[in-house]
Amino acid sequence: MPRRILVIGAGKSAAYLLHYLLEQAQAEDLEVEIADKTVDHLPETIARHERCRVRSLDISDEQARRAAVKEARLVISMLPPSLHLEVAKDCLAFGKNLVTASYISEGMRALDQEVRDKGLVFMNEIGLDPGIDHMSAMQVIDRIKARGGKMLLFESFTGGLLAPESDNNLWNYKFTWNPRNVVLAGQGGAAKFIQEGTYKYIPYHKLFRRTEFLEIQGYGTFEAYANRDSLSYRLAYGLENALTLYRGTMRRVGFSRAWNIFVQLGMTDDSYRIANSKGMSYREFVNLFLPYSPTDSVELKLRHYLKIDQDDIIWGKLLELKLFDANRKIQTPNASPAQVLQEILEASWMLSPEDRDMIVMYHKFGYLLDGKKYQLDSNMVVVGENQRLTAMAKTVGLPVAMGALLILNQQVKKPGVQIPIQAEIYEPVLKTLAENGIAFREYEVPYLGYNPDSVAS
Amino acid sequence: MPRRILVIGAGKSAAYLLHYLLEQAQAEDLEVEIADKTVDHLPETIARHERCRVRSLDISDEQARRAAVKEARLVISMLPPSLHLEVAKDCLAFGKNLVTASYISEGMRALDQEVRDKGLVFMNEIGLDPGIDHMSAMQVIDRIKARGGKMLLFESFTGGLLAPESDNNLWNYKFTWNPRNVVLAGQGGAAKFIQEGTYKYIPYHKLFRRTEFLEIQGYGTFEAYANRDSLSYRLAYGLENALTLYRGTMRRVGFSRAWNIFVQLGMTDDSYRIANSKGMSYREFVNLFLPYSPTDSVELKLRHYLKIDQDDIIWGKLLELKLFDANRKIQTPNASPAQVLQEILEASWMLSPEDRDMIVMYHKFGYLLDGKKYQLDSNMVVVGENQRLTAMAKTVGLPVAMGALLILNQQVKKPGVQIPIQAEIYEPVLKTLAENGIAFREYEVPYLGYNPDSVAS
Repeated sequence: MPRRILVIGAGKSAAYLLHYLLEQAQAEDLEVEIADKTVDHLPETIARHERCRVRSLDISDEQARRAAVKEARLVISMLPPSLHLEVAKDCLAFGKNLVTASYISEGMRALDQEVRDKGLVFMNEIGLDPGIDHMSAMQVIDRIKARGGKMLLFESFTGGLLAPESDNNLWNYKFTWNPRNVVLAGQGGAAKFIQEGTYKYIPYHKLFRRTEFLEIQGYGTFEAYANRDSLSYRLAYGLENALTLYRGTMRRVGFSRAWNIFVQLGMTDDSYRIANSKGMSYREFVNLFLPYSPTDSVELKLRHYLKIDQDDIIWGKLLELKLFDANRKIQTPNASPAQVLQEILEASWMLSPEDRDMIVMYHKFGYLLDGKKYQLDSNMVVVGENQRLTAMAKTVGLPVAMGALLILNQQVKKPGVQIPIQAEIYEPVLKTLAENGIAFREYEVPYLGYNPDSVAS
Repeated sequence: MPRRILVIGAGKSAAYLLHYLLEQAQAEDLEVEIADKTVDHLPETIARHERCRVRSLDISDEQARRAAVKEARLVISMLPPSLHLEVAKDCLAFGKNLVTASYISEGMRALDQEVRDKGLVFMNEIGLDPGIDHMSAMQVIDRIKARGGKMLLFESFTGGLLAPESDNNLWNYKFTWNPRNVVLAGQGGAAKFIQEGTYKYIPYHKLFRRTEFLEIQGYGTFEAYANRDSLSYRLAYGLENALTLYRGTMRRVGFSRAWNIFVQLGMTDDSYRIANSKGMSYREFVNLFLPYSPTDSVELKLRHYLKIDQDDIIWGKLLELKLFDANRKIQTPNASPAQVLQEILEASWMLSPEDRDMIVMYHKFGYLLDGKKYQLDSNMVVVGENQRLTAMAKTVGLPVAMGALLILNQQVKKPGVQIPIQAEIYEPVLKTLAENGIAFREYEVPYLGYNPDSVAS
């Protein structure tokens, strides 16, 4: 009887995951069962594969969910993060291993002792970011430490962007993932990091004005804004003594400065509802955030309020979104400003069928070895095939699939609720990813850190 | 047996309240019982007054609290807002009327039906703001409506500031009330109001850059920033059809532009703790919010970050607070940025013994009468005596005392959890306030609203 892997939730991000598992199914003696509310959207190559079964499953139907989990050898949950926990409890009840690409929630973490006691592996954060970032960082950090190096600096940046040939709007950006997450990015508290031993805090309303620049050979210049908490993996990565820890999100240069317009206006606020949003024009929406005037135009009020010069490229970006259009109407009733903004952006930033996305990741490692400072930079670029087969789906789905196989084959043995920072998982996954075109390039560069000797005060 | 009024909580704001009640005690046959954790701070003129009793009371001691409430005819709670509810429940249990100067909380509002059923009066928001603002506004609104006028516009502004002779720092500001409330002012959601029929929203980080100017005859120019929710009294005031509703907080001109520096830096954030705050210098604190540099000074980084010109008066305001001092140390351990900022400001903004504070209030009423538009402006200025006998304590305490007497004498009859918007309370209170030097001046002015005909587009 083949070994059954249950994949719960088969959305956009599951295409590569399912392809990879089915490709290995014969050799690895697998059966892949896909369980989702609706399974009609699955391509025939998957749904009709002889090693594939599909099951219509309502995740809130406890009995059906438990029955599906019980019959599997291992469970992959590709559900929205808030829904993992119920599945995890089922896995615990029936003694099944679990793999997710999501951040470990409080509830998930609380299961750790029970998971260990049963000798199970609940592997989380094994997608792209979090996922490939953990694995690629730990591989280098462990290598530096093994050589006797002492980590001084770690910076890590990831971006879900567009391949150059599809990078054809003024924002250099389209939605390749959950639009709502993009609109709300950075909210919920100040960004926290440490530079040269000094803690630094950036409030949300300044986040998009404190960007750093990054070069990726062959792909030009990018910018990055700080993630909310760069210190969260300090212990897990063994970087307690590093002087600089910074994690950020990459965009093409100029995106953040323009995005800041929305932040400053208050358009990314998700905390209250606009009662009369449905039927409101884009122009009226903008005017909600500007002072009243009986005479002055929305345009001039906005330019003056945020000091936007007449020839500033930001203006073109706002026009591209039709932001001042009095005829375009908002559809969402009783929407928060963030929901309205998302609706406006979705009208402009959707991938067309042939658009190709691009994932970029960039790490900087600074370290001390034999009394000398060194720096190693590494980066990864992955380009998607089209609107459906995105680099995002590939880089999220493949490590999940590879991690699941390693766990199924007991090559990953450490039990517990965990993330992929052990060599037993990152070494084989990174090797197999590289065979599938997801590889890092490394560059030895002069140590710069944040305190280059060459700068005089 | 004299009629006992129980005053729970006898802090800074209670001086005028107690004086007033004791002044009336003989004529009104009152006994004033003061209950507080410690009562040592009471001046002898109060504590030894023949009509005064003091009782040491721990508010969390339910039995003692209930005993005190039971023996009174009416209860005045001057406790922090979060503590009113327990007292309110005691009042309900023993059938006592209650007076507070605080906003009606959800919990308090939930008692309304029971309070009505028992024929009790729980009068809240009868201090300064809220309090005198409600009463003085409703008196004019009711008068306009009685004449057949239709309200078009209502704007209301209050400020706790300094008398001109004590207005001797660059901020034109000192703490005359709870410093924490000043530091956190405006947080917790976007400001919402309506201008000429259009809803307007201001996010916190823009609040202090969207001020309005106001003139008060004899006192010069003031500025005002919007309160969080100007729409909350729309129904209570009967202003459902008014095109403009705006409530704001008054400061001297220039305060908000300088305060905005703290907001922009993130220093007013109360949502996280700085682990190493104790012993940190003021200068290091500022540097937490600025980019790292091995060479550039905190001063230049701040000037550049927030674009502060060399000759901008804002800079003098920051220097006056010793913000860049490397020798002044923060005392509070594990403090939020807001707590540190409060500590820094308290070192600079405390009233000296002879300092006099000043309360200003300003209303604008726009209305339509017989097809014509009119505007009535009214304002009130009250100057304090010294650090202890402040205009703040007077304007908060006196209406509470007067309201309590009216309720005790059954001149206010409407039962329920309420605010002072009925003529039966605002007429006698405003009259008695005027006899005590708290009076409004009214000015008929040309109707301007926000859409003056004289401005052409």
